[in-house]
Amino acid sequence: MADKQEFVKDIANIDEEFANWYTDIVIKAELADYTETKGCIAIKPYGFAIWENIKDYADKLFKESGVQNVYLPMLIPESLLQKEKDHVEGFAPEVAFVTEAGGKKLDEKLCIRPTSETMFSTLYSKWLKSWRDLPMVYNQWCSVLRWEKETRPFLRSREFLWQEGHTIHETEKEAVERTMQMLEIYEKVVEELLAIPVLKGKKTESEKFSGAEDTYTIETLTRDGRALQSGTSHYFGQNFTKPFEVKFQNREGKEEYAYQTSWGISTRLMGALIMAHGDERGLKLPPRVAPIQVKIIPIAMHKAGVLEKAEELKEVLKKEFRVEVDSREQVTPGFKFNECELKGIPLRIEIGPRDIENGKCIIVRRDTLEKKEIELVNLESEVRKCLEDIQKNMYDMCKKRLEEKTQVAYTLEEFEKKINDNQGYIKAMWCGNNECEEKIKELTGAHSRCIPFEEEHLSDTCVCCGRQAKHEVYWGRQY
Amino acid sequence: MADKQEFVKDIANIDEEFANWYTDIVIKAELADYTETKGCIAIKPYGFAIWENIKDYADKLFKESGVQNVYLPMLIPESLLQKEKDHVEGFAPEVAFVTEAGGKKLDEKLCIRPTSETMFSTLYSKWLKSWRDLPMVYNQWCSVLRWEKETRPFLRSREFLWQEGHTIHETEKEAVERTMQMLEIYEKVVEELLAIPVLKGKKTESEKFSGAEDTYTIETLTRDGRALQSGTSHYFGQNFTKPFEVKFQNREGKEEYAYQTSWGISTRLMGALIMAHGDERGLKLPPRVAPIQVKIIPIAMHKAGVLEKAEELKEVLKKEFRVEVDSREQVTPGFKFNECELKGIPLRIEIGPRDIENGKCIIVRRDTLEKKEIELVNLESEVRKCLEDIQKNMYDMCKKRLEEKTQVAYTLEEFEKKINDNQGYIKAMWCGNNECEEKIKELTGAHSRCIPFEEEHLSDTCVCCGRQAKHEVYWGRQY
Repeated sequence: MADKQEFVKDIANIDEEFANWYTDIVIKAELADYTETKGCIAIKPYGFAIWENIKDYADKLFKESGVQNVYLPMLIPESLLQKEKDHVEGFAPEVAFVTEAGGKKLDEKLCIRPTSETMFSTLYSKWLKSWRDLPMVYNQWCSVLRWEKETRPFLRSREFLWQEGHTIHETEKEAVERTMQMLEIYEKVVEELLAIPVLKGKKTESEKFSGAEDTYTIETLTRDGRALQSGTSHYFGQNFTKPFEVKFQNREGKEEYAYQTSWGISTRLMGALIMAHGDERGLKLPPRVAPIQVKIIPIAMHKAGVLEKAEELKEVLKKEFRVEVDSREQVTPGFKFNECELKGIPLRIEIGPRDIENGKCIIVRRDTLEKKEIELVNLESEVRKCLEDIQKNMYDMCKKRLEEKTQVAYTLEEFEKKINDNQGYIKAMWCGNNECEEKIKELTGAHSRCIPFEEEHLSDTCVCCGRQAKHEVYWGRQY
Repeated sequence: MADKQEFVKDIANIDEEFANWYTDIVIKAELADYTETKGCIAIKPYGFAIWENIKDYADKLFKESGVQNVYLPMLIPESLLQKEKDHVEGFAPEVAFVTEAGGKKLDEKLCIRPTSETMFSTLYSKWLKSWRDLPMVYNQWCSVLRWEKETRPFLRSREFLWQEGHTIHETEKEAVERTMQMLEIYEKVVEELLAIPVLKGKKTESEKFSGAEDTYTIETLTRDGRALQSGTSHYFGQNFTKPFEVKFQNREGKEEYAYQTSWGISTRLMGALIMAHGDERGLKLPPRVAPIQVKIIPIAMHKAGVLEKAEELKEVLKKEFRVEVDSREQVTPGFKFNECELKGIPLRIEIGPRDIENGKCIIVRRDTLEKKEIELVNLESEVRKCLEDIQKNMYDMCKKRLEEKTQVAYTLEEFEKKINDNQGYIKAMWCGNNECEEKIKELTGAHSRCIPFEEEHLSDTCVCCGRQAKHEVYWGRQY
């Protein structure tokens, strides 16, 4: 117990100071650390291993859907950024510029990409000739830079890792289908790998991407009931292909501008993961994304045969699972248990001399903290069953919270009271005017998250102005 | 034949204009393209797929040897760069600086990493406490920026992709062992995956990395007999850990500075690959690294059953190989054959109505252009055998050329004549003085490549000054 307190005493109370709890977990579970470069983090091995699992899972789904990876320059001449009016207005304030290089002042400033629509469009205009070249479905895994004023590890870093897909198509229909297809892939990554249920829908005019025709989003909910935009997919129409002259000879032999999309997920998903599942003991990782799925902790390690048995179990399990033995001598088993919990390892196995005698071991689940004695002969099947159950249970727990934290409001007063009493999503009707969105934001701190794909008809009138309602909207306070 | 000329006529003559041939291949085989950002290329899907294969192969070997991946900021405050004297002198002239961001001039300039010794060392000083924390064997896959005056796709780009490993250790012995271990992994990547024999050795004082105690290198030879530094591994001793205060409590309870290494390979390997294997028809890829190992080209595609048969062969082969069918209607089979050759696809299969009738197909090797009729019932085993043989043959051909282009020189006159007559490596004895290295460089254009690990005693005296020789050195002109 002394060991446990050792860990937990340093972590802010999750119910009282959720934001501090979050940064404590990031640092103490060794996911990332602050650096000498303000607003930029270092992702440490344990954190990066999680990101690699997300990346590999997503990249496989991308490739199965026909995506090809590329790599484009990180520096973009200022003049390219200027070509699409809404885009430059949206991004100019948070861009970083290289002005000196190789000991000289540059003739033209180069910006570090905040996103690469402009660079992709410029190259597509060079590469595209005929409808036979279409579609081009390219993606890059890279880092981008946005000079944010307030930063928070993973959620809002000046530099962050992401993938940005940029595609061009022969028809509007095909481009819209690709926009939706990628949103569905993101849903799959977040729900199936990260065990977090998502809300899917379309952003309102004021919340969409600078330069996009339409922006679609997947939103997740944190433990404390805030919304987190976790992946977006944009349909651009010809908004970039016209100024960048991305045109082709169509099947009728005529010149036509291509239809474009872009879509991205980032290390922000790490933030979603921490904030969706963590508890007062630390991180809680779904087995599919966990770098270590099973940790074996030998008890009374100095006794003959214990360490050997632990290694033997590891050999059995490692064919199917990511497994490690914690054989450190300088710390107690209790310390190791708590560290396991802090780091969110889905399952730990405790094995000591008496267990070995009886042909048994103890397995402890991170999600429920439930302990169970199992026969060693059943080890593999028990571990498999247990990890599958943890993955499912973690999703179900989040789903349950999502339902509990999604409320309907018919008036502004109700909206305000409900979001204050039980922070989460508010479902409410909206007239479609930006003024109402602004008023709701001012009054309640909630932004429109999205217009869901399957709208319910909650009432006839806008929650804010009382005029004719156009859409159901999900609203929420955000990180 | 018209088709063939169509392709080849646009490619510079490989024997007369090798440098132009190189850039023609980069562009026409669709590996990369120039961009609006001077000195920076866009890596296209086919080129990037090759890089992904290199990356995956190397990363697996890294991880098996205990390397952990991380990600550190790309922006480094100028003051950090200044901390190690030799290092800043080496890199300062080619650094790019961010001076404006978020609409403001920055208080301190931030450089875009040309390499990350300074950032790793700063973080290690924060993370390292005790000998129990050692070793830290971290690596990152990222891009770096060096403001080169003359650039060439892949070989020397202002921005390039690479991995940089940075490790700290308890003892000098362990650090030196890690330096060597990584060099051996690089050798494996280049010899086993890329089918290029390497020369391994130690760099002379004047050629070593800025700030290193010792630099070890693997060198490859291009078709035209130039040397290409293809991977380096550095032992730093305590050169960085002292100024950056990377210290730990050792086993005796005393404070000690850690011993450090760094090592890297980059997209320059793409250049090595093109220049080692290519011929007058284009790129030539070893099967293990080829994104497409087998291309199936249906002949008389409009005849019933041909395309179906081609797809059937693909289904059979795809379980084991990376295979595609070229079913485009707008180009002839001849065009497809030549495109296959330009893109360096190791094996192509031609199948037409008569072949199908006879239960046969034609396979054509890219390395020897040899054609062979095989029975369809033996398809998998023939393809397997053939790809293995191509991989081996490509290595052997390079090895043979390496031997033919490695010559001994005992005098400067001989040195000059031999390197002019048959450009390649010159093996010659060296006194150890920088003046002789400089003189050789001026007279012959050849840099010292390395002191090989197993030195031969060619003679007693320095090839340049005639004084007592200290080492055998390999010399060569470089890209």
